[in-house]
Amino acid sequence: MSTRSKANAIVAQSGGPTTVINSSACGVIQEAISSAGIGKIFGATNGILGVLKEDIFDITAEAPEAIEGLRRCPAAAVGSCRYKLKSLDESRADYERILDVFKAHDIHYFFYIGGNDSMDTADKVNKLAADSGYELVSMGVPKTIDNDLAFTDHCPGYGSVAKYVATCAMEAGKDTEALYTTDTCSILEVMGRNAGWIAAAAGLARRSRQDAPHLIYMPESAFSFEKFIADVSAVYKEFGRVFIVAGEGLKDEDGDYVTAETSGLGTDSFGHAQLGGVAEMLKAVIEKEVGIKARFNKLGTCQRSAMHFASLTDINEAYMCGQTAVKHAVAGVNGKMVTLVREDGAEYKCTTSLADLKDVANGEKKVPAEYINAAGNGVTEAMLDYVRPLVRGEAPVTIGEDGLPVYMRFDRRPAEKKLAQYL
Amino acid sequence: MSTRSKANAIVAQSGGPTTVINSSACGVIQEAISSAGIGKIFGATNGILGVLKEDIFDITAEAPEAIEGLRRCPAAAVGSCRYKLKSLDESRADYERILDVFKAHDIHYFFYIGGNDSMDTADKVNKLAADSGYELVSMGVPKTIDNDLAFTDHCPGYGSVAKYVATCAMEAGKDTEALYTTDTCSILEVMGRNAGWIAAAAGLARRSRQDAPHLIYMPESAFSFEKFIADVSAVYKEFGRVFIVAGEGLKDEDGDYVTAETSGLGTDSFGHAQLGGVAEMLKAVIEKEVGIKARFNKLGTCQRSAMHFASLTDINEAYMCGQTAVKHAVAGVNGKMVTLVREDGAEYKCTTSLADLKDVANGEKKVPAEYINAAGNGVTEAMLDYVRPLVRGEAPVTIGEDGLPVYMRFDRRPAEKKLAQYL
Repeated sequence: MSTRSKANAIVAQSGGPTTVINSSACGVIQEAISSAGIGKIFGATNGILGVLKEDIFDITAEAPEAIEGLRRCPAAAVGSCRYKLKSLDESRADYERILDVFKAHDIHYFFYIGGNDSMDTADKVNKLAADSGYELVSMGVPKTIDNDLAFTDHCPGYGSVAKYVATCAMEAGKDTEALYTTDTCSILEVMGRNAGWIAAAAGLARRSRQDAPHLIYMPESAFSFEKFIADVSAVYKEFGRVFIVAGEGLKDEDGDYVTAETSGLGTDSFGHAQLGGVAEMLKAVIEKEVGIKARFNKLGTCQRSAMHFASLTDINEAYMCGQTAVKHAVAGVNGKMVTLVREDGAEYKCTTSLADLKDVANGEKKVPAEYINAAGNGVTEAMLDYVRPLVRGEAPVTIGEDGLPVYMRFDRRPAEKKLAQYL
Repeated sequence: MSTRSKANAIVAQSGGPTTVINSSACGVIQEAISSAGIGKIFGATNGILGVLKEDIFDITAEAPEAIEGLRRCPAAAVGSCRYKLKSLDESRADYERILDVFKAHDIHYFFYIGGNDSMDTADKVNKLAADSGYELVSMGVPKTIDNDLAFTDHCPGYGSVAKYVATCAMEAGKDTEALYTTDTCSILEVMGRNAGWIAAAAGLARRSRQDAPHLIYMPESAFSFEKFIADVSAVYKEFGRVFIVAGEGLKDEDGDYVTAETSGLGTDSFGHAQLGGVAEMLKAVIEKEVGIKARFNKLGTCQRSAMHFASLTDINEAYMCGQTAVKHAVAGVNGKMVTLVREDGAEYKCTTSLADLKDVANGEKKVPAEYINAAGNGVTEAMLDYVRPLVRGEAPVTIGEDGLPVYMRFDRRPAEKKLAQYL
C-alpha cells in the first residue's frame, strides 16, 4: 500500500466457530492497530454475509479490554456464517459487491479467518481486485477444529478440541468403568465431518490398555458393522465394559455414510437415520447384536467452544497466525495463508510459513494410514506423538464473582452504509 | 463399638457416579484411617453388588497417594452399581447376606454414599443387624447430581454439574450467537430425571437478556408443545436465535413423559421416541413448526464426570460429608445421613446436620414453584441465589506431562473370600 499513508483493514470469521478463532482475530486486530500503515479495522458482522450486506463495524472503536478479551473467548465474536461463494463466473455479482464495499470504506487489507472455502473466497476477491486495478491485500488465517487443511502441520482450533475431547473420553470412561454392571457400553460422538482427527485425538486418554477409549472409529477407515460387532464383543469379553469414540461422518467401504439403513437393521428398528447421529445408531446396533446396554454422549457445539479447558499452545498459535498474517500483509505479501510448521527436533517448536490461498482452497488433509491401527479401530503411537504437543498448556479463563467464566462481547456500532442494499 | 478395640469399616458407592462422589469417599477413608476405633477399611467393588458377592478390597492397603487422589477424581473409584434391594420381606436373603459378609470380615461400620435407595438399604441392613443383635453402625453420605434428596439444602455432586452445565450453555450459546444465520437454534439436553435442578442451574449463564439460555424447561413445569412453539418463536423474533436447555424427563400436564408420540407429530415424522432423547425430539418439532434449523447437544455422562471444571465448594462439601459421617459414627451416632445446612446470613456458609436414613429414603425434593418463572420456561432470581454459591471456586486438576488430567485408580487386591458364593 505504498501509494497511501493509511489504508483500512477488515477482518472476517467464517464457518463453524472454534475455541480459538477469536484468539486469531485478536492477533490480527492488535497487530493491525500497531501497524503504521493500517487505519481503521472493520469487523464483518456474520462473516462474508456482513461484507455483502455492508454490515460492518469499527473494531478500533471497541474497548481495548474487549479486544484483549478475544484471546480467551470461545466462538466467533466478530460473527460467522456458512454463506458459500461459488466460482467467479457463477458468483461474480457477490465478488464484485465485496470489492464495492471494500472501496466504499477504503479497505485495502482483507484478513479472512477460516477454512478451505474462505481461502477460496479470499483468493477470488484478490484476483478480481488485481484485474480491476484495486489495491488489495488478501491474507488467510487458518481455522478449523477438523484439522483438515493442507499445507499446515495442524490448524488452530484443533489442539483445544483434541484436549477437551480426550479429557471427556477419560472422564466419561471413568464413569463407564464405575457403573459397567449397568451401563456397560458408552459411545462418545465427536465432530470432524470427513476427517477423523478429533476422534483420533481421543486416543490420548488411553494411557493404559484398560483405559477408555477402547475403540476409535474414524471416517478414513471403511466401517463394517460385522467387524464393529466383533470389536465390541472382544472388548466386552476382555474388560466387561466398552468405551467407543466415533467420528460423526463414518463411511462404509463404498464411501457412503453409515446410516441406520445401511446398518442391516433397517429403519423400522430404530427410526430414520437422519434424526439421530452415528452414536445413536451404534448404540442400537450394540444393544441388538451384542446384547449389552449402551448409551451415548454427543458433545456437539460444546466441543468446539470449550474455552474453559482450552490448550494454551492452541490459543497462542492461533494468535500467532493472526498476528503473522498482518505482519506479512504490511510487508507486501499478498494472496497467502499463514501455515504452522513443526520444526524438527525432540522438543516441539512451532513456527509459521505461507501457502498460496488457491492451493489451500483445493487441498484437504485426512488422517494418514500410518496414524490408524491395522484393525481400523484405533490409533498408532505416531498419531499420539503428532497430537500430544498440541494439547499442552493450561489456559485458565477469567472467572466472575458468580463463579463462572467471563467472556467478552463487542458493542458492534455499525459503520454508516454508503451503498445500496444488497441481498 | 464399645465392646471391641478395633472394628472394620466398609465404604460403598451407589448409583450414577458424580464428579465428587470420590471426594466423599476420600473423606470417609481418611477420617476412618485416623479413627482409633476403626481397623481395616474395605471398599465394596461395584457397590452393594460387591458386598453381596463378597467382592471387597482393603482400601487401607492402597497407596496413600491413590486415596488422596480420590479428592480430584471423577466417577466412582470404589465401584458402583444400580442393584436395588426391595423391602425386608421381599429381599430378605440379600439383607441377610450383607450381614453375613459384614460378620465374616468383622465389619461394624457401614458407610454408604448414595441417594434415596441407598439410604433405604443402609436403614434396612441396620434394622436387621439390630434385630439379630449384631453391632453395626450404618451411616449415609448424600450423593446425587439430581439434587433431589430431602432434608439437605443441596447434595454433593450438584454444585459441580451445575457449574459445568452453566458453562457449557454459556459457551455453546456463544457458538449459536456466532453462527445463528445457519444454526439458528440449539438445544442442550441435561440430566436430572424427574427433577429440574440441573436444567435450572444453566440459568446462571444468562447474565443479560440476550445471553443463552433463553428458555429452560424443567420436569416440574407441565410441558405443552403449543406453548413451546410459541416460546421459541418469540425468542427467535426478538434475537434471531434461540438457545434452549431441556431436562431429560419433561412431562406433560398429565404427568406423562413427553415423547415423539405425544408431540402431535406422530412417530412417522421422526422415528421412535425411545431412541432419541428429549432434545432430539424438540429439534424435530422446532424445525417442523417454527421452520428454523435446530441442533442439539447431549452431554450425557460427561456432565456428571467433568472434574476438569468442578466446583471447589462442591468438592470440599463432599469431603466434609464423608468425614462427618465417620466422626459421628465413632461418636456413637447410628442410622443417620449427613445433611448439608445453609446457615443464615448474607455470606454463604455451609455446615452439616443429620437426618434419619428412613426419612431420606422416603423423601424427594423437586424444584419449588418459586424458583420457576411464571411462564414455566425459565428460572427466578431466587433459584439463581440458591445455586450461585454452590458453583464457586476453581479446583484445577493435576495435569500430566501429556497435558491431560491425571486421575487415580485403585489396585483393588480382593479380600480373601470366607463365605460360599452368592448371586
